[in-house]
Amino acid sequence: MVQIAVLGHGTVGSGVVEVLRKNHGSITKKAHDEIHIKYILDLREFPDLPYADKFVKDFSAIENDPEVDIVVECMGGLHPAYDFVKACMLKGKHVVTSNKELVATKGAELLKIAREKNLSFLFEASVGGGIPIIRPLYQCLAANEVYEIAGILNGTTNFILTKMIREQMSFQDALDMAQKLGYAERDPSADVQGDDSCRKICILASLVFGKHVYPEQVHTEGITNITLEDVEYAESLDGVIKLLGRVKKLEDGHLSVMVCPAIVGRSGQLASVEDVFNGILVRGDAVGDVVFYGRGAGKLPTASAVVGDVIDCVKRLEYKKYLYWEDGEKGYVKDYRETSSRFYLRLKASDAQKVLDAAKVAFGEIQEAHRANAPSDEVAFATAEEIQESKLEQVLSQWEQDGTQVLGCIRLFDY
Amino acid sequence: MVQIAVLGHGTVGSGVVEVLRKNHGSITKKAHDEIHIKYILDLREFPDLPYADKFVKDFSAIENDPEVDIVVECMGGLHPAYDFVKACMLKGKHVVTSNKELVATKGAELLKIAREKNLSFLFEASVGGGIPIIRPLYQCLAANEVYEIAGILNGTTNFILTKMIREQMSFQDALDMAQKLGYAERDPSADVQGDDSCRKICILASLVFGKHVYPEQVHTEGITNITLEDVEYAESLDGVIKLLGRVKKLEDGHLSVMVCPAIVGRSGQLASVEDVFNGILVRGDAVGDVVFYGRGAGKLPTASAVVGDVIDCVKRLEYKKYLYWEDGEKGYVKDYRETSSRFYLRLKASDAQKVLDAAKVAFGEIQEAHRANAPSDEVAFATAEEIQESKLEQVLSQWEQDGTQVLGCIRLFDY
Repeated sequence: MVQIAVLGHGTVGSGVVEVLRKNHGSITKKAHDEIHIKYILDLREFPDLPYADKFVKDFSAIENDPEVDIVVECMGGLHPAYDFVKACMLKGKHVVTSNKELVATKGAELLKIAREKNLSFLFEASVGGGIPIIRPLYQCLAANEVYEIAGILNGTTNFILTKMIREQMSFQDALDMAQKLGYAERDPSADVQGDDSCRKICILASLVFGKHVYPEQVHTEGITNITLEDVEYAESLDGVIKLLGRVKKLEDGHLSVMVCPAIVGRSGQLASVEDVFNGILVRGDAVGDVVFYGRGAGKLPTASAVVGDVIDCVKRLEYKKYLYWEDGEKGYVKDYRETSSRFYLRLKASDAQKVLDAAKVAFGEIQEAHRANAPSDEVAFATAEEIQESKLEQVLSQWEQDGTQVLGCIRLFDY
Repeated sequence: MVQIAVLGHGTVGSGVVEVLRKNHGSITKKAHDEIHIKYILDLREFPDLPYADKFVKDFSAIENDPEVDIVVECMGGLHPAYDFVKACMLKGKHVVTSNKELVATKGAELLKIAREKNLSFLFEASVGGGIPIIRPLYQCLAANEVYEIAGILNGTTNFILTKMIREQMSFQDALDMAQKLGYAERDPSADVQGDDSCRKICILASLVFGKHVYPEQVHTEGITNITLEDVEYAESLDGVIKLLGRVKKLEDGHLSVMVCPAIVGRSGQLASVEDVFNGILVRGDAVGDVVFYGRGAGKLPTASAVVGDVIDCVKRLEYKKYLYWEDGEKGYVKDYRETSSRFYLRLKASDAQKVLDAAKVAFGEIQEAHRANAPSDEVAFATAEEIQESKLEQVLSQWEQDGTQVLGCIRLFDY
């Protein structure tokens, strides 16, 4: 029998307990051992639960109990999660976590401890909720040189964008609805400003390219400035707007990592990922494009991934997992201003034709975008060529000085 | 250093060698050991290849070389692949295979030998080519009770159907094109008649439900009878026709396993899987729906999966993999005549209205389907309720006796 402790009895933690209890028989069969929850750490009381006796408020009870082999961290946030996880590993306990903030900021350090102590540190649930992505990336696709990953990594923002696209709902109305439905938190900033997607793309980039990418190294834009006008123009370009986390290996060995709203082709695999679902596209030299799709959040989907890791951990208690990446370093991630993309631009100008002519001079060939009842002083187009970000900034600031107002600016990605 | 032997230097086998050579550096890093190809078994000569010296024609050289730890079987077909694989395992060698026919017919026996001898027998490439599906099913989703899997498992037929749907190409023209492009073999029967999909759904069903499902237990229909008329009617029902392999756990504990063309909703995840791509939908009690998408065939995608298994195998040479399923048994798979589905029917009848009335009596509520310029003696509709297969057969044979001709009959699946 393997004794485990669950840290945190919130949405994910309670889901983990539920799944372990509900599927106890088949899980025991698959793990080839019985998994017994010895402790659940939470400061709250749950007297009415059938497993109320397992709750403890004092972490040291878990830390100092040599019977506990595996600790499942579902508290979220950096502190005290980081301190607890580190303490447990230093005591020789395997750790499974769903905490993306923890892995995105402290992954390299914790993986190093795991390697030194021959422990498993698993975090399948930290990206894509229930979607298998971490294990497929480092195991199934291990034969590949993966050179690019692009993902719809946040269900809340994808729900909002889907409502804007499908039902012409405004951003604010869609956000209100997401909050009513419990998809968005009272303070939705981590979702709508892209921070959540940023942590997830950091984890994927670190795992695939072997060196830690820290959130502060990633240029991150949210969807708060996306308007229904942009949605309509994107449609005329045969695309839809999605919030993407994207990492790309550059020829000079550096990484381009970015989180931003992007226009993707309507017929592509990412365009069909709607509502709260996530979709992650991986490009490898041998396998080509593979896409993983499913529920990226929610109690049971996330618990499914956590418990999958626990089972894997139990099967290899005396056999550590070869998950690893090194510390990151300054300059490893390329300054986004030095990278290039195609751009969609929406502008307000007294003389529309003049702007279009100037655009052709500055960017080369462009494709005009259209929407119904656009005011005569509004123009929108997509560049045919990739433009370096720094150059775009120069051109746009020049135009703004000349009285042209930039209403919208969205990258076009080829997925 | 780990010595391996590759059996067969056809499309997959040569791809495996290519990937192992091309990505040698990163693969060594991930496997934590160097993988060295000692033998390649093939009856043909390849004098001009840089690795010509590795070729042998005599299997016993490999079988009897204790230095060979892992044998990679890429010959395809049942014999001699089965005999060679079994012989190697009895000599204590781990086996990685891409051979779906081998796994679908002999999986339980070979997994039993692997368990007894503490060996790995891995076959990620046998389903979905380069798409990670086997490992995610038994590892990442291990916390789930999976109760249903539906997959577009054959790229050739999906290419043909896509051409019929997108370009109104006839089945024969689309097949010719597939053959010209090298997607279909000179004898395409294994693809178009569903046998290839059947082997793959057998493997998935055996893996997920723990008991071997044999191809002969699976009701299998191909796409040779699908016409452009059916494609057009399906569109009027807001669906598209796909060839699906499907397994479903029934409440009585038995399995319903079937390969057949099916109409799926246009907005579903499987409908957007086009051309030679595969897509596999898995339904679990905790995770909900997850979909895996990618290239289901081809030299490098398949090699990617094979080499991924080899790397995994190398990492656990002294630690076997817990893949396992038992022998199957008669009656485990329910006779498809006792299962039910919604149906689309296309009929030729002198009195169309009479048939529609009879349909309502026999099947309850129906939804009429339409197409442009349909002859007046043609009717098409979908049943709203699920009808038991045996009942449908009775009704249709009765109608045929009464002079109504059945032109098309396709199931409707809810994916």
